[in-house]
Amino acid sequence: MTRGRDLGIPLEGTTGPLNAITDVTGVEVGFTTLISGSGKLVTGKGPVRTGVTVILPRGKKYDPVFAAFYDLNGNGEMTGVHWVEESGFLDGPVAITNTHSVGAVHQASIAWAHSRGFINPNLPGTYWSLPVVGETFDGSLNDVNGFHVKEEHVFAAYDGARTGQVAEGNVGGGTGMRCHGFKGGTGTASRKLPVDQGDYTVGVLVQANHGARKNLTISGTPVGHEISDLMPVFRLRTSTSGVFRSFEEGAGSGSIIVVVATDAPLLPHQLKRLARRVPLGIARLGGMGENGSGDIFIAFSTANSGAATRDYLQKVDMLPNDQINPLFEATVQATEEAIINALIAAETMEGVNGNISYAIPHDRLINVLKKYNRI
Amino acid sequence: MTRGRDLGIPLEGTTGPLNAITDVTGVEVGFTTLISGSGKLVTGKGPVRTGVTVILPRGKKYDPVFAAFYDLNGNGEMTGVHWVEESGFLDGPVAITNTHSVGAVHQASIAWAHSRGFINPNLPGTYWSLPVVGETFDGSLNDVNGFHVKEEHVFAAYDGARTGQVAEGNVGGGTGMRCHGFKGGTGTASRKLPVDQGDYTVGVLVQANHGARKNLTISGTPVGHEISDLMPVFRLRTSTSGVFRSFEEGAGSGSIIVVVATDAPLLPHQLKRLARRVPLGIARLGGMGENGSGDIFIAFSTANSGAATRDYLQKVDMLPNDQINPLFEATVQATEEAIINALIAAETMEGVNGNISYAIPHDRLINVLKKYNRI
Amino acid sequence: MTRGRDLGIPLEGTTGPLNAITDVTGVEVGFTTLISGSGKLVTGKGPVRTGVTVILPRGKKYDPVFAAFYDLNGNGEMTGVHWVEESGFLDGPVAITNTHSVGAVHQASIAWAHSRGFINPNLPGTYWSLPVVGETFDGSLNDVNGFHVKEEHVFAAYDGARTGQVAEGNVGGGTGMRCHGFKGGTGTASRKLPVDQGDYTVGVLVQANHGARKNLTISGTPVGHEISDLMPVFRLRTSTSGVFRSFEEGAGSGSIIVVVATDAPLLPHQLKRLARRVPLGIARLGGMGENGSGDIFIAFSTANSGAATRDYLQKVDMLPNDQINPLFEATVQATEEAIINALIAAETMEGVNGNISYAIPHDRLINVLKKYNRI
Amino acid sequence: MTRGRDLGIPLEGTTGPLNAITDVTGVEVGFTTLISGSGKLVTGKGPVRTGVTVILPRGKKYDPVFAAFYDLNGNGEMTGVHWVEESGFLDGPVAITNTHSVGAVHQASIAWAHSRGFINPNLPGTYWSLPVVGETFDGSLNDVNGFHVKEEHVFAAYDGARTGQVAEGNVGGGTGMRCHGFKGGTGTASRKLPVDQGDYTVGVLVQANHGARKNLTISGTPVGHEISDLMPVFRLRTSTSGVFRSFEEGAGSGSIIVVVATDAPLLPHQLKRLARRVPLGIARLGGMGENGSGDIFIAFSTANSGAATRDYLQKVDMLPNDQINPLFEATVQATEEAIINALIAAETMEGVNGNISYAIPHDRLINVLKKYNRI
Repeated sequence: MTRGRDLGIPLEGTTGPLNAITDVTGVEVGFTTLISGSGKLVTGKGPVRTGVTVILPRGKKYDPVFAAFYDLNGNGEMTGVHWVEESGFLDGPVAITNTHSVGAVHQASIAWAHSRGFINPNLPGTYWSLPVVGETFDGSLNDVNGFHVKEEHVFAAYDGARTGQVAEGNVGGGTGMRCHGFKGGTGTASRKLPVDQGDYTVGVLVQANHGARKNLTISGTPVGHEISDLMPVFRLRTSTSGVFRSFEEGAGSGSIIVVVATDAPLLPHQLKRLARRVPLGIARLGGMGENGSGDIFIAFSTANSGAATRDYLQKVDMLPNDQINPLFEATVQATEEAIINALIAAETMEGVNGNISYAIPHDRLINVLKKYNRI
Repeated sequence: MTRGRDLGIPLEGTTGPLNAITDVTGVEVGFTTLISGSGKLVTGKGPVRTGVTVILPRGKKYDPVFAAFYDLNGNGEMTGVHWVEESGFLDGPVAITNTHSVGAVHQASIAWAHSRGFINPNLPGTYWSLPVVGETFDGSLNDVNGFHVKEEHVFAAYDGARTGQVAEGNVGGGTGMRCHGFKGGTGTASRKLPVDQGDYTVGVLVQANHGARKNLTISGTPVGHEISDLMPVFRLRTSTSGVFRSFEEGAGSGSIIVVVATDAPLLPHQLKRLARRVPLGIARLGGMGENGSGDIFIAFSTANSGAATRDYLQKVDMLPNDQINPLFEATVQATEEAIINALIAAETMEGVNGNISYAIPHDRLINVLKKYNRI
Repeated sequence: MTRGRDLGIPLEGTTGPLNAITDVTGVEVGFTTLISGSGKLVTGKGPVRTGVTVILPRGKKYDPVFAAFYDLNGNGEMTGVHWVEESGFLDGPVAITNTHSVGAVHQASIAWAHSRGFINPNLPGTYWSLPVVGETFDGSLNDVNGFHVKEEHVFAAYDGARTGQVAEGNVGGGTGMRCHGFKGGTGTASRKLPVDQGDYTVGVLVQANHGARKNLTISGTPVGHEISDLMPVFRLRTSTSGVFRSFEEGAGSGSIIVVVATDAPLLPHQLKRLARRVPLGIARLGGMGENGSGDIFIAFSTANSGAATRDYLQKVDMLPNDQINPLFEATVQATEEAIINALIAAETMEGVNGNISYAIPHDRLINVLKKYNRI
Repeated sequence: MTRGRDLGIPLEGTTGPLNAITDVTGVEVGFTTLISGSGKLVTGKGPVRTGVTVILPRGKKYDPVFAAFYDLNGNGEMTGVHWVEESGFLDGPVAITNTHSVGAVHQASIAWAHSRGFINPNLPGTYWSLPVVGETFDGSLNDVNGFHVKEEHVFAAYDGARTGQVAEGNVGGGTGMRCHGFKGGTGTASRKLPVDQGDYTVGVLVQANHGARKNLTISGTPVGHEISDLMPVFRLRTSTSGVFRSFEEGAGSGSIIVVVATDAPLLPHQLKRLARRVPLGIARLGGMGENGSGDIFIAFSTANSGAATRDYLQKVDMLPNDQINPLFEATVQATEEAIINALIAAETMEGVNGNISYAIPHDRLINVLKKYNRI
């Protein structure tokens, strides 16, 4: 798997050892990737280019984390965030899939939590679950109306979730995505703060399916202007004639889900501040929060384990606001790099009706960076 | 079906002809009610006491309405509202079910929209759907972890949606609910403004499952203090002993979904103002937005048909802010009355493990109102 | 000073010893009341019926408190809340005055903080101040465009702030207010939770200037319907004729500022939950958040003294969300009672152009409560 | 006056004729600049390096515009926005000054509105004013605790407001500002959309006082790394010793106020979308919404003149959401360019205690752009 730094793209900041969301201790990530069939779209049959990604803040145990939500543009879904905002806690995992599989993943997440005993009709406080399920749209490559993500796929993602290295590109919920007019998908990155700034880690995972080609900017270079070909092909049957009309899509429709994890002891209102900085990372690459995009973010902290008790006062750690700037920078930088990593790792994919989304060509990207003296 | 006004409960304001959300022209409501089995809870078998309710702002056609969202307490779910907030439009129906059937109803709502052509992979702007699905918890009476709401039930609710009178009490998503420690469920009411205030209608539908008994106040009388028996019975198997422990639940856990419809020409930010007044109606009955409650509201306007075009400027009607007070009052009053109607119409129900939720006794309620000289 | 409970009005809950915001240890309240002149309004001369109220969460020292803001209707001002929302801290006092004296009180609050050393150009982190100043409108009785609140009045309020009993009615910023068509003003109340609910105190102070007469409901009785005379007289010079036209104002224009203090260890997002319950207390008396009203609230906690350090991690106490319901009820009840106390304490006042706002007649109020068997 | 484009900085998009907020027809801008004294800070005496800037959406008449507010980081003030958010209207001008002169400008804005008849105690609906006053902090150059902005300065700014070219750099409220460690201040820019995108104009005015030096990025080039000298000098008297300690400030403390004007017919919730894209423009230059920064934005539309009537329904124009992307891009680009223009126009300034803020050196900036092949 090639990543942004492998190509020599100049990126600010110091990464954690894996340069992944799993650099935050305890965070597990799981994927189920569904790729099958080719050719003409037959709803319910395929072709299938989709999947599901799950992020478990403290692995497979029940111990809510402080969390907060923000969206730059709400043309998308992330369920479960009303309770995140109200309580300050994320009670369970975050799952990400395609737009029309939110329901299946929602129900399967409850079934999985029930099977694990996290939902227990005999234990006060665990009667119900409000799963957090986000999505981005893969309908230009995937039979999105075919509902191909099933309960067993979701269970497999949860049960297979692991710490350690994280797959990128065409995996999990990110399988059928495009980004800035190239093939997009799953990406991750992290930042490690120096000891005198608290030695904290910020990890980011994105499911990147957003952005217009013309606006794509990498390390300050106008990549979208320099590589204006290789636009995705998306055939649309005109409603009147029944004839396919091919056209290029790169105008920013799509979405991006961003999950920010940190071990810094931030309270919910401070995590909200992190979530609200995510757009700054998106912006550095040329994202605009376009009208057709669901740019939705959740940030959580793995500090303060055990804070969600019911019965007695908690002592919780709080970082002073005056020390939060490095975490803002880490969030912005890691978001930027995670999107770049999604772009670099994703491979060209053909999907429904022969639609194609092209990978960003690494050699040409390097040439652009050289042209502007960034490598 | 007995309603609040049938009992002589003094309620302010002038109702529409049906005293229902369907007094707002074009609004359709559909229900599927699922009641089967009795006795011991066997997850996946039953007993079943649940259902689904759907509200279609302009019936079964695609014509988005201006809308807005607010929640008093976010311990619950209403999907799809990120886009409502961003775009100002509610694109399709609102569905309400039990907490753990949100996923099934979400997916079925997409499937139904697809079957109706509202989702069309060949028509720009209709590629995807972000259904609005709310819920309240019926696990004290229903096998909520058994996922008994299936696609066919959701289709039946949509296809069977009608204008005209609206069933109340133990119907649809409200089947297994309780409210202020009595049997709760579905309720509706409306207000009609006089001609010199614009002749507008406000209709409300609630799925009421919230509130503590002790705080229940009807027409200013302390009903919860006066009728402190008939508390719901909820048997809990203690985790250590395996022995059931009976206890009374009336402490305000639960939820309430409120749907506010109007034909007044309000813009999205004005509909937000309506949604934010819903708590005032809940408060008049003693609701507190308790920690365990998901008190979540959506308000829409059926004025400005056709406003959601893609291609050209729209002229839309806007009510001056200075004329909005009567709509605030109508929203508060209709919310209050819809909850009362849910309480009055609901009948005593026995559910899982023999748990019982008692209907409010009409005769004793009348006696309370008489004691305080309100009748 | 007569208060609601002195008249025997039935009110729920147990008060603190003073039944005032100052039951929360450390909270100080100060007033400057300005009453002078009578007769015709001459801008800049008078008559003057206004003042300023200040609430100091921890008295006259610099030690920020966790805090949060909410408004039911934004037709009003509370400065300084962007930083409260962002940081989670209220850095200094809350001041309340008339609508057009916000500027004077804002500047004087900075000058006072500077004089006390809370603003210090030589001490990092204390370079600037963003004072919290709220307001309600007293222009029907006061020469509100005459800017009669001066720096010395604000200093006097701050310097004179005290713990202990709190004056009510026509005092401080509440001097020239009306409420539900009667004379309004300053009111306060508190609730003390039992030991098994944490032994916490919630104190509320209101500057009440809101509400329509017809909707006034006290202890569930329709006071506004029963006492429909004694409407305020407000003479308006018609712009064309120069002739005064007398009319009655009681339609809900006005505002209410509510300050909620507690010693319960709530984090900022939990204090937001308290602030969002304030409308429930207003609703129980018939408030609607009318269009012409600025219903703006701030809640703070005096727990976690010293939490606002710059340099090192803090251990802060957090109440479990599952224990917050009694604080919700206390907030709602204390808000309701504080408004009642403002109404009961306020005395009939004549102001500019002979305009009159009448006190609620205690004997008739008691008769209404008797009629409905509440006394 | 030199501007960004004069230096050849490559910037995307097509500007309006003036490349200023005043390209939006009807918008007037006025300034009062106060510069006097030098040497040691004596509070109340000086040195003075401050002023006030006013933006009048429709010039000097009363005709509210649709508007919306957002902040990236709330360490700052913008008064009056509760009513903007609630009503959807900005009733009057926007004023910007230094942090501690908000009160003076607030009161003077009311006095000016009263003198103009916009506040009229004899005309319903115009009884009170809730002025919109923003600020950024100039205390490193200005005697900010001396309250040097007086009523006459505010009146002069209002009365002198004009359409046409707009001064930049060390003028008005922007006089004593710094930005990314260089001298900052007032800047403006505009974008003109092509006819097939509606022929609309977006104009932006910033008071830029934010940003860390190290993060400054112009046209994708790492200016902050390349020009790391010329840091501002800020002498601080250590509290214990009375001895001045010089240090360099460039860590992002400060603030930025951004005013976005457009003639596109956007409703309030759509203007909110514009306001929420402002951070994307700030991000492209390296802003992070740092903890010590008040990054506060207001967006308004001059379309729909006359929409704020009290008495009858309005027909208002609404742009389809599907056509809003070009306005997002225009907002982002014009924000970015306005900040650059503030930096380019501002001149080196010495202020209190001999503190200095250096202008960005144009020649060295050009060299950086050349180094990275952007010129």
